[in-house]
Amino acid sequence: MDRHSGKELSERVFLYDTTLRDGAQMEDISFTLEDKLRIVSRLDSLGISLIEGGWPGANPKDREFFARVREIELKHARIAAFGSTRKAGNSVSRDPVVADLLEARTPVVTIFGKSWHLHVRDILGLSREQNLSMIRETVDYLKQNGREVVYDAEHFFDGFDDDPDFALETVRAAREAGADWIVLCDTNGGSLPDAISLATARVAKDVGGALGIHAHNDSELAVANSLAAVLAGARQVHGTINGIGERCGNANLVSVAPNLALKMGFFVMEPAALARLRDSAAFVSELSNRALPKNMPFVGESAFAHKAGVHVHAVRKVSRAYEHIRPELVGNRQRILLSEQSGRSNLVEKARQYGLSLEDGDSHLSTLLARLKEMEYAGYQFEGADASFELLMRQALERTDPFFRIDFFRIAMGRGEKDGYAEATVQVRVGSQSEHTAALGNGPVNALDNALRKALSTFYPEVRHISLLDYKVRVLSGSAGTASRVRVLVESSDGRRKWGTVGVSENVIEASLDALKDSVEHYLLTSGALRHGE
Amino acid sequence: MDRHSGKELSERVFLYDTTLRDGAQMEDISFTLEDKLRIVSRLDSLGISLIEGGWPGANPKDREFFARVREIELKHARIAAFGSTRKAGNSVSRDPVVADLLEARTPVVTIFGKSWHLHVRDILGLSREQNLSMIRETVDYLKQNGREVVYDAEHFFDGFDDDPDFALETVRAAREAGADWIVLCDTNGGSLPDAISLATARVAKDVGGALGIHAHNDSELAVANSLAAVLAGARQVHGTINGIGERCGNANLVSVAPNLALKMGFFVMEPAALARLRDSAAFVSELSNRALPKNMPFVGESAFAHKAGVHVHAVRKVSRAYEHIRPELVGNRQRILLSEQSGRSNLVEKARQYGLSLEDGDSHLSTLLARLKEMEYAGYQFEGADASFELLMRQALERTDPFFRIDFFRIAMGRGEKDGYAEATVQVRVGSQSEHTAALGNGPVNALDNALRKALSTFYPEVRHISLLDYKVRVLSGSAGTASRVRVLVESSDGRRKWGTVGVSENVIEASLDALKDSVEHYLLTSGALRHGE
Repeated sequence: MDRHSGKELSERVFLYDTTLRDGAQMEDISFTLEDKLRIVSRLDSLGISLIEGGWPGANPKDREFFARVREIELKHARIAAFGSTRKAGNSVSRDPVVADLLEARTPVVTIFGKSWHLHVRDILGLSREQNLSMIRETVDYLKQNGREVVYDAEHFFDGFDDDPDFALETVRAAREAGADWIVLCDTNGGSLPDAISLATARVAKDVGGALGIHAHNDSELAVANSLAAVLAGARQVHGTINGIGERCGNANLVSVAPNLALKMGFFVMEPAALARLRDSAAFVSELSNRALPKNMPFVGESAFAHKAGVHVHAVRKVSRAYEHIRPELVGNRQRILLSEQSGRSNLVEKARQYGLSLEDGDSHLSTLLARLKEMEYAGYQFEGADASFELLMRQALERTDPFFRIDFFRIAMGRGEKDGYAEATVQVRVGSQSEHTAALGNGPVNALDNALRKALSTFYPEVRHISLLDYKVRVLSGSAGTASRVRVLVESSDGRRKWGTVGVSENVIEASLDALKDSVEHYLLTSGALRHGE
Repeated sequence: MDRHSGKELSERVFLYDTTLRDGAQMEDISFTLEDKLRIVSRLDSLGISLIEGGWPGANPKDREFFARVREIELKHARIAAFGSTRKAGNSVSRDPVVADLLEARTPVVTIFGKSWHLHVRDILGLSREQNLSMIRETVDYLKQNGREVVYDAEHFFDGFDDDPDFALETVRAAREAGADWIVLCDTNGGSLPDAISLATARVAKDVGGALGIHAHNDSELAVANSLAAVLAGARQVHGTINGIGERCGNANLVSVAPNLALKMGFFVMEPAALARLRDSAAFVSELSNRALPKNMPFVGESAFAHKAGVHVHAVRKVSRAYEHIRPELVGNRQRILLSEQSGRSNLVEKARQYGLSLEDGDSHLSTLLARLKEMEYAGYQFEGADASFELLMRQALERTDPFFRIDFFRIAMGRGEKDGYAEATVQVRVGSQSEHTAALGNGPVNALDNALRKALSTFYPEVRHISLLDYKVRVLSGSAGTASRVRVLVESSDGRRKWGTVGVSENVIEASLDALKDSVEHYLLTSGALRHGE
């Protein structure tokens, strides 16, 4: 199968997304109701088949979610409510958790039950029969109430390892009671792919029917385990976008999907949806308040970024020599980077991207390379700050004057009797004219940014379109005896495109100002602003 | 094999660390010479067998490294210099890259050669024979010069997939010329575990001898691929600490090692060294200027952190019910967290940890739970800010007065004629007395922190021991119509222990001040400071 053409594929694997339930159990993640509804729409547009929306019995917010989600028109996805089997002492028709599950009025209900005698006997203090009844009766009751039932066999692989008959009996009970999907869960995340294969194949043979896999990433094997289970017969894969989840996360659907679709011959989602994978990953990541890691497989900023001198030369010639898939298939793109191992060919390529003339034998090349290494040694990094590097190259090769200079600035912040404030003053100079002004902001950098652009807008009105998208501060470890430096990376936008700039200083405000200056300078340069005369 | 006791194991797998070479090719990574030497010592103490120190031909800094590393006394590790086979047109004895490799005077030399006709023919424009000669002659030459030779078969799996005979021929040539290790590289990172297994088994059968695997994480399968290769006969695994490396990184040795050692019956390093895994990961992470991701398998802060109400209850009873290995085996520990799905049992457990009395039926419990959910909804998160939560619980349960209050504060920052400055003033109140002072800092938060502790030290001299270790700002997405809030997480230390606090506000300075206040308050509380009377 040609992974580079994305040819049409045969057998189908259904993705079951638990970003909103298992994913939300991750530290530092807290989705608002609005966030969740937006994620549902996004997942639906990706072609995800099943979306686990929450745990109505455990969280009041989830009840509101299930009410609101019914108002959304979904093209592909069906919503699942998640919960446990009835409690040991309750009859199923009077169990509050089960009642909550039905009240969520979802087409699908997912319940989890115990597959490991360790849990049943030692932790819950129940008998084998009691456990099987809990499973059977809950599945049956949900089926009678018209639900599609997904049965999550918790700790299945550990249970199967300890006592295979016990484990098989639990899933057989669920199947016989009518469960539509039996999902084998590696709840502790400790299983190896071969064990997953063997156990899944055994269930396929002894119990049969539609099977799924729910893997966790505690051994860094969740994706591999999911693929192994599919090869052994599973056709439903549970996971989350970006692999978020408790402890080390769930199986990352963003890696599972392209592996299944582009390399293993399964149909997972329309190619057009797969090409939106990167955007979807970025979207969920933003709502999770986590930056999408640059090195994320398939969709990370660096996933197809070529650095070392020797690669770049080859990449320009034959992409598949160095790329395992065509980046566009998942909505990503190829990038050429700068680095310490930067070769001359990297810089020539960069110059070409910027529309500058720089040949391999040019004397400026050695100077630039040396300057680059010197700056990187001082703490500058141009990855994520391409605009600053372009300015550096242009200044070296074209020797043009900057659009403006900063004469001085001041920042004040505090809290007096009532509210807090942040105020910045700045004086900019353009040619022989200057403008001195003040601005407020919700913090020092924001105030400075506002003041800078306010002052500059008297000369260049277009700077009003610039806004700050992201602002990252990193303290650089100083060597013995020197003070720590701070590196500030700023991402700006004019509503249509984004660009990154960098500043380094021992003072965070100075570093921020440098990054902001570069941002405006770059904008003026690339938007074709007219320079003011002397 | 009992993964929970770490019993003594039989067959040996050697770890080959390329953190300093392949790892350093990652975006945003830039190790100084001192960093590299410190990492070498740390890797040696871990029991790593081979350390790839650099690429002398590509980077001048590396030459100095190889000179300096000879001065370090190593107990386990041997250093390898990395480079390419001789260039097509050069004789091996006059090739500058090969000369550089020998000049590094390392006991081991690792060279990479082409296994895929696509590279040989289409990119380099060479014949099959030319390629084989380059491989043979370089390996032979290095052996004659007394080196142990590791031969990296670049793009082996893609090459084997396209033309198995071509690929096998290249590694056979290296073996016959005397290479000590043949390492099969999945250079593009796109191979699946079964393909890795098959190809590795084939090489083991057709070529034989000591084999290794060098996987990349572009498909999120590097660890799985490494394990698959070991099962197929490889006994050397290449990777980096924390999986750093170009694009999506190399195989993460921090996951590979415990999987091999605790689950697959191989000897990888002494148990005492394995128990230092977490510290080593944190160490390299600090030098890389990257935070160790909380959700990192095995060694992440969250790897054994239990959140959802239902788990915590079980975890307290029987650890192996919910933990795939005992965390101490890799130097990690179990943690109980707060969450939106926080159950009563989580809070009772937390109170117990803090030495507070809180029973399951206590009326304060419901109040606290509600307050917690309310604060989390407002943007507070207590993971990473355990000290703030402890204060919250104490205030609710013990109703003690704070150690101090802040009457007012001001911050100013700017740059005038020459240098920049940041100045903060603050007035604190303790009982009926107040202290108003000023301090400078290298930024607004640092100045505020200094001023706060300077003012407080007149009442509580011990606050001088507190220092700020880490400071993270996160902008919280506001819902439509409201301004964005900012959450500040501060990590403090007194040189012996660390603690985290949090502050949330629309103003980053206010949020920072709240986090700093909590930090000092918590320190005074837990260090048994005497309160000043009214």
